[in-house]
Amino acid sequence: MSEAPGEFGLIARHFRPLAGPGGLSLLDDAAVLDPPPGRSLVLAADAMVAGVHFLPDDPAETIGRKLLRVNLSDLAAMGAVPLGYLMTTAFPRDIDDAWIAAFAGGLALDQQEFGLDLLGGDTVATPGPMTLSLTILGHVAPGAALRRGGARAGDEIWVSGSIGDGMLGLGVLQGRFAPDAAGFLAARYRLPQPRLGFGQGLVGIARAAMDVSDGLVQDLGHLCRASGVAAEIEAGLVPLSPAAGALVAGDPALLALCLTGGDDYELLFAAPPGAEAAIRAIGGDTAATRIGHFTAGPPHVTVRDKNGAEIALPRGGWSHF
Amino acid sequence: MSEAPGEFGLIARHFRPLAGPGGLSLLDDAAVLDPPPGRSLVLAADAMVAGVHFLPDDPAETIGRKLLRVNLSDLAAMGAVPLGYLMTTAFPRDIDDAWIAAFAGGLALDQQEFGLDLLGGDTVATPGPMTLSLTILGHVAPGAALRRGGARAGDEIWVSGSIGDGMLGLGVLQGRFAPDAAGFLAARYRLPQPRLGFGQGLVGIARAAMDVSDGLVQDLGHLCRASGVAAEIEAGLVPLSPAAGALVAGDPALLALCLTGGDDYELLFAAPPGAEAAIRAIGGDTAATRIGHFTAGPPHVTVRDKNGAEIALPRGGWSHF
Repeated sequence: MSEAPGEFGLIARHFRPLAGPGGLSLLDDAAVLDPPPGRSLVLAADAMVAGVHFLPDDPAETIGRKLLRVNLSDLAAMGAVPLGYLMTTAFPRDIDDAWIAAFAGGLALDQQEFGLDLLGGDTVATPGPMTLSLTILGHVAPGAALRRGGARAGDEIWVSGSIGDGMLGLGVLQGRFAPDAAGFLAARYRLPQPRLGFGQGLVGIARAAMDVSDGLVQDLGHLCRASGVAAEIEAGLVPLSPAAGALVAGDPALLALCLTGGDDYELLFAAPPGAEAAIRAIGGDTAATRIGHFTAGPPHVTVRDKNGAEIALPRGGWSHF
Repeated sequence: MSEAPGEFGLIARHFRPLAGPGGLSLLDDAAVLDPPPGRSLVLAADAMVAGVHFLPDDPAETIGRKLLRVNLSDLAAMGAVPLGYLMTTAFPRDIDDAWIAAFAGGLALDQQEFGLDLLGGDTVATPGPMTLSLTILGHVAPGAALRRGGARAGDEIWVSGSIGDGMLGLGVLQGRFAPDAAGFLAARYRLPQPRLGFGQGLVGIARAAMDVSDGLVQDLGHLCRASGVAAEIEAGLVPLSPAAGALVAGDPALLALCLTGGDDYELLFAAPPGAEAAIRAIGGDTAATRIGHFTAGPPHVTVRDKNGAEIALPRGGWSHF
C-alpha cells in the first residue's frame, strides 16, 4: 500500500490548508501547542446536527462558519481571546467533495476574521444526519474570565445587539414568515455574530455574563441559578432589529418567540448600577441595551409588560430532551 | 420559568459529577484552566458513531470508556500526560436515563484510572445514530512530543502489545468467529488499553511514533509518508495474543485481517538499532516487539513471509470514505 485512501485524501485536500503551526499539518496523532505564558486557557465545545441546529439545505459555507461562531460566542461570553480549535465531522458517506470544499472555505474566511487556526480533529462517516462537533480554545488573564455566578440583587440586566433575529430567520427560511427585503433575518440565523471584542471589553465591568443560545428567558434563568438571584425584565425593552420589529408589529404574538426562541448568540450580562458609561465606552459596532434588573429571591425570571403586568410565556427556551 | 428543563437536568445528574475544578461544575459557557507552566499542550479529538465505531448493543459503560481511551491512545502516541477532556454527545431523543448513567459511570472509572477530569462539552439530540466526540488535552515537555516524521532508513520498526485482537473481537461479537473462553478478544474490542506510560517512556528513545487505530499496514504507511522512508515488516513477527493466535492457527487467512483490521490502539514506533535494551527497560506491563525495519525509498509498506516472499494484502486498512 502506498497511496492514502479516501478519508485521508479528503483531510489533506480540504482541512490541511486550515491548520496552523500547532496542527502539525494534521499529520500527527495530536496537535502540540505552547499556551500563551501567564494566561488561563478557556475551552468550550458545541455540537450541531443537520435538521436540528441547521437546515440540511443551508449553504455549506455558512454551516462551517456557524459551527465556529457558536463556539466563538462561548469565548466571547467569558471575555476570552481565540486561540485555535479542533473539529470532528461525521459526514454522510456520499457527501460531495465540492460541498466539503465550500464548508472548509467558510471556515477559512472565519479563521482569518477571528484570528485562529485549526489544530486537529477527526473525519468519520455516518449513516445518519451530518453531525459536527467543535472544541475551541481561547485565553484570558488569570481570574478575569466572565462567569455566570456573579450577579447580585440590584444589578442591571443588559443584552448586546438584538434578540429574536435567529429564530425569526429560521421561520423565514422555513416559509413561516415573510422574508425581509435585505435577507437580514435569514443571515442572522445562518451566520451569528460572536461578540468577542465586546465580551473582552466587559472584563472588569460586568459582574456576570453568558451568551444567549437557547432563548433569552431560559438562559437568564441559568444565570439566575448560578448567581442565586431572581430577574425581572420588561419585554418592551428587549432590543429588536428593524426586521424583527416589523414582523412583531404585524403579529404581536411573535414577541414571545423572540424572547424564548434561541440562536441569538448575543451576550447577556449583569452590571452594577452606574456602569452604563463604561459599557457604552467599550465601543466597536456592538450596542448594548438595559432590559431589567436582578432582585433578591429564589432563582426565577419574570417578564413584564410596560404596565408592570406579568407576561406568561409558553416555554422558556430550547431543550433537546 | 424556574426549573431547568430536561437537557440541563441530564447534564447535572450524569456529567456534572465528572467535572474537575477547571470545568466550573459545567455551569458556565466554557472551562477555565491554568495550563501546567513550562509544558507544551497536546490536543487530539476523535469521534465515534454507533454502528460504525461501536456496536449499538455494546454496554454503555464500555462505550464511554472506549471513547475516552481512543483519545488517550493519541496522547500516548505523542508521549503526553493526560490533563482533561471535553465531550459532545448526540443522543437519540428517547435515550434511557439508566443508559446515560452507565455511560457516565464508565467515564468516571477511567477518569480515576488515567488521572483526568471532564472540562466541558455539549449534549444534543439526534434523529440518527448516537454520535460521540471527545477532545483530549495533555501535556509534554517542550520539544519532547513523539512525532510521525522522524523515522530514518535503518531504524527498526516496533509495536507494543498485540495486534489484531480488536478486529477479531468485533468478529466474535458479530458471531463470525468462535469466542475465546476468557472473552479476551471481545474485551479488547470494547476496551482498548492506551499505552500511556509506555509512550511517555519512549520519549528520547523512539525517533517516530503513532498509535495503530486504522490497521497496522495502513498506519505504518502514514508513518512512512510522514518520514519519507519505506518499511518492510515480516508478518510472522507481528505479535499476536494467545487468543488471536489460536484463531489464526485455525484459519491462516485471518492473519491478513489482523494486519489490516484496525482498532488495535497499540503504539507503532521507530527506534535506531541498539535501542532494544532501553525499550525493554521502560517496563510496566507493556511488551514491545520488533517487526521489521525502515529502508530508503519512496513511502511504501512491504509485508513479507518468513522466507522473504511478499504477501499481497486485500487492503491496507480502514477508511471512512
